[in-house]
Amino acid sequence: MPLTGKHLLGIAGLPVADIELILSTARSFREISTRPIKKVPTLRGRTIMNLFFEPSTRTRSSFEIAEKRLSADSLNFSVGTSSVSKGESLIDTGLNLQSMKPDVIVVRHWAAGAPHLLARYCGECAVVNAGDGMHEHPTQALLDALTIEDHKSEMEGLKVAIVGDITHSRVARSNAILLKKLKAEVWICGPPTLIPVDFEQYGVQVTYDLEKALAEADVVMMLRTQLERQKEVFYPSVKEYFNLYGLDRKKLALAKKDVIVMHPGPINRGVEIDPDVADGDCSVILEQVNNGVAVRMAILYLMMGPVEETTR
Amino acid sequence: MPLTGKHLLGIAGLPVADIELILSTARSFREISTRPIKKVPTLRGRTIMNLFFEPSTRTRSSFEIAEKRLSADSLNFSVGTSSVSKGESLIDTGLNLQSMKPDVIVVRHWAAGAPHLLARYCGECAVVNAGDGMHEHPTQALLDALTIEDHKSEMEGLKVAIVGDITHSRVARSNAILLKKLKAEVWICGPPTLIPVDFEQYGVQVTYDLEKALAEADVVMMLRTQLERQKEVFYPSVKEYFNLYGLDRKKLALAKKDVIVMHPGPINRGVEIDPDVADGDCSVILEQVNNGVAVRMAILYLMMGPVEETTR
Amino acid sequence: MPLTGKHLLGIAGLPVADIELILSTARSFREISTRPIKKVPTLRGRTIMNLFFEPSTRTRSSFEIAEKRLSADSLNFSVGTSSVSKGESLIDTGLNLQSMKPDVIVVRHWAAGAPHLLARYCGECAVVNAGDGMHEHPTQALLDALTIEDHKSEMEGLKVAIVGDITHSRVARSNAILLKKLKAEVWICGPPTLIPVDFEQYGVQVTYDLEKALAEADVVMMLRTQLERQKEVFYPSVKEYFNLYGLDRKKLALAKKDVIVMHPGPINRGVEIDPDVADGDCSVILEQVNNGVAVRMAILYLMMGPVEETTR
Repeated sequence: MPLTGKHLLGIAGLPVADIELILSTARSFREISTRPIKKVPTLRGRTIMNLFFEPSTRTRSSFEIAEKRLSADSLNFSVGTSSVSKGESLIDTGLNLQSMKPDVIVVRHWAAGAPHLLARYCGECAVVNAGDGMHEHPTQALLDALTIEDHKSEMEGLKVAIVGDITHSRVARSNAILLKKLKAEVWICGPPTLIPVDFEQYGVQVTYDLEKALAEADVVMMLRTQLERQKEVFYPSVKEYFNLYGLDRKKLALAKKDVIVMHPGPINRGVEIDPDVADGDCSVILEQVNNGVAVRMAILYLMMGPVEETTR
Repeated sequence: MPLTGKHLLGIAGLPVADIELILSTARSFREISTRPIKKVPTLRGRTIMNLFFEPSTRTRSSFEIAEKRLSADSLNFSVGTSSVSKGESLIDTGLNLQSMKPDVIVVRHWAAGAPHLLARYCGECAVVNAGDGMHEHPTQALLDALTIEDHKSEMEGLKVAIVGDITHSRVARSNAILLKKLKAEVWICGPPTLIPVDFEQYGVQVTYDLEKALAEADVVMMLRTQLERQKEVFYPSVKEYFNLYGLDRKKLALAKKDVIVMHPGPINRGVEIDPDVADGDCSVILEQVNNGVAVRMAILYLMMGPVEETTR
Repeated sequence: MPLTGKHLLGIAGLPVADIELILSTARSFREISTRPIKKVPTLRGRTIMNLFFEPSTRTRSSFEIAEKRLSADSLNFSVGTSSVSKGESLIDTGLNLQSMKPDVIVVRHWAAGAPHLLARYCGECAVVNAGDGMHEHPTQALLDALTIEDHKSEMEGLKVAIVGDITHSRVARSNAILLKKLKAEVWICGPPTLIPVDFEQYGVQVTYDLEKALAEADVVMMLRTQLERQKEVFYPSVKEYFNLYGLDRKKLALAKKDVIVMHPGPINRGVEIDPDVADGDCSVILEQVNNGVAVRMAILYLMMGPVEETTR
């Protein structure tokens, strides 16, 4: 059973059935990672281009590993080494890459909507959004959902607190949309300067008070504090930020006993999260990383399917 | 049947029989790109090093895809991440890479003659010129020839206009030489400051008048305007350049009805080519990109041949 | 027979039996490089991450070729393109990479001890030191030992002179330790400002007089002069350095007739070594490069072993 759409551009627009299909497929791919030979021949002969306009360890390497575990051929493009430095437009870059007949283009871009542009103009191959500006990061939300489901029997009614710089976070947006689709109770929390006014459209609770967000929470999702924003005066100092919105053991005690703590990484120890919590028993941060490979394998597999069944 | 020489350094020196062999081989490889599994095991176990001293999306990725479709192992070196930043000479870099026993080194370099130096001093492995300074870009000329032959029944006598900054263009030089070898009628056109005095040696027509170059042309090949050259005052302004040498629909009407418009990319929309023309029915720009992969597969295949026949 | 330890962090701590096992395994892998198909399926489905915090042509590509010849999947990370630029700690980077379940992480780092940190905190996968600060470069010393054994029947009692900037050289340190383990007579030579006081602990002879070091030497190992150090005034000028510690034919005549000259590369022609010597009959510099691939294949193979025997 394939996915409904050809591309994976965001969680908005992704049917719940597709979300569930991706998560269940990821679970079965995850078992491959426990074997000594972690590779399947599923996508042999397929070409996947990873087009990254922003630096990334985690996401790029997670996709690359997923591609290699499926035996696809990976090509990596990052800004510094590409014609983009010669001033070519995104669409022209996309049309050129498409003419080389890749099966999938995975794109991360600093501009919201870039993957959608590619999908519209270069849509012969499938497009996966690996993070676009402050808009969406759908594969992150899917791996987060997989991680939550590993620990909680039922998504419906779970209290999930998403804490930090909501305004600049594509992770927060994709997660809020996905979690609401799966009927969780989502609390958004951060300084008033870092919560966008339009966020209530997603049916989430908004609070500036961390204690309210954490009270009886099942899941706490901390966001990365982008320290470079501080000079734009969204908050007075790192120390004050940590006091108000950083997660330490004492604050975490407000949540349920079996709370899990998540973070999309890379973490800033002592800024948004105390090392005690990041490395503590409630932390599932590294499980998220492992699930990322499985979710990306599932998405690529479902987007292309086994050749035997579809095209031969 | 192998190629005459061990290396592919330029179109000058490449016999017509070799050109024809490469083009016919490329045509058969091109069919592989239309299959769901676009890969053949031909060069499995062979190692190809892509050594790029200049940034490139198109050429580097075209070679890399060609290599992967042939199942070779690709290694990429670009300047920023290599010992070149430690001041090593090109020959020493080449000797070192050669000692790791690659089968082919694909090299792009900002200095004319760099691939020839490598071939002379590090000639145990085959060397392919992927563009050297303002000198030659033989794989581009070959993919251009393949594209022309796809649209025109006979190369002999075709009127081909090459328009733009001829002086700094390795694409123009390689194309002029190749097209004359195949007996086309080649017109070179650009501002007087951007046409080298020695170009008539290739047997081409030189004109500064775009209308003359376009009149009854079968093929128009627009070159990339290197905007960074403008500060060196080769032409007064981008606007004036476009008025005199840019291609729009009105000027294109001077050419034959079935004219094809080519460009090596990346294009500067509105500088040397109007978007109407770049995206119009006469444009074969994206076909060139697709042909690039096939031509490079053909070259690599012919340079190494199937192991079964030659060495086992 | 596997290696004694899980990781390869340095020559210090590596038993002589392991050194001999690596060298003999490398010799058998070296024969693969002479075949037209230089690839074996030994590590198919294994994932190896190359994590380079310093630029490198030789070492990175040597590892990458070794990995591909063993059919492993390689992933490359270099500083500029990774989250490290976002301020993540080495251990957090390592934990994240480890969560993607690689089999081996190959790490080069500007800080001494970085691979040891990774091995301690992220030790689920095997760690190979590809050079850490001014500390160790064990794979270089092993490939150097292989090269010496190719030319000399017996390591015991050989006079090996290591010449240059000893203080900043991880190559010198790893070689000194390894050569003493194999009972060679090691002479360390360089300007007094560039020899650390603690070096005699390794049981080597220290001299500031090049003639003494070269007299009747069997092997001369020249180190790379890091020209950027000159501004720190370790020596007065490049010319004076060459006069005192550079190797030319005349000085080399002091050594044994069958002396071999080694250099870890990249060489500075005319700074620490005269081109006549670098390219001369005694030079085995390029053999070292070839042996580097074989030694790294051996190490990776021995660290993981064939899956059939160990885990299936």
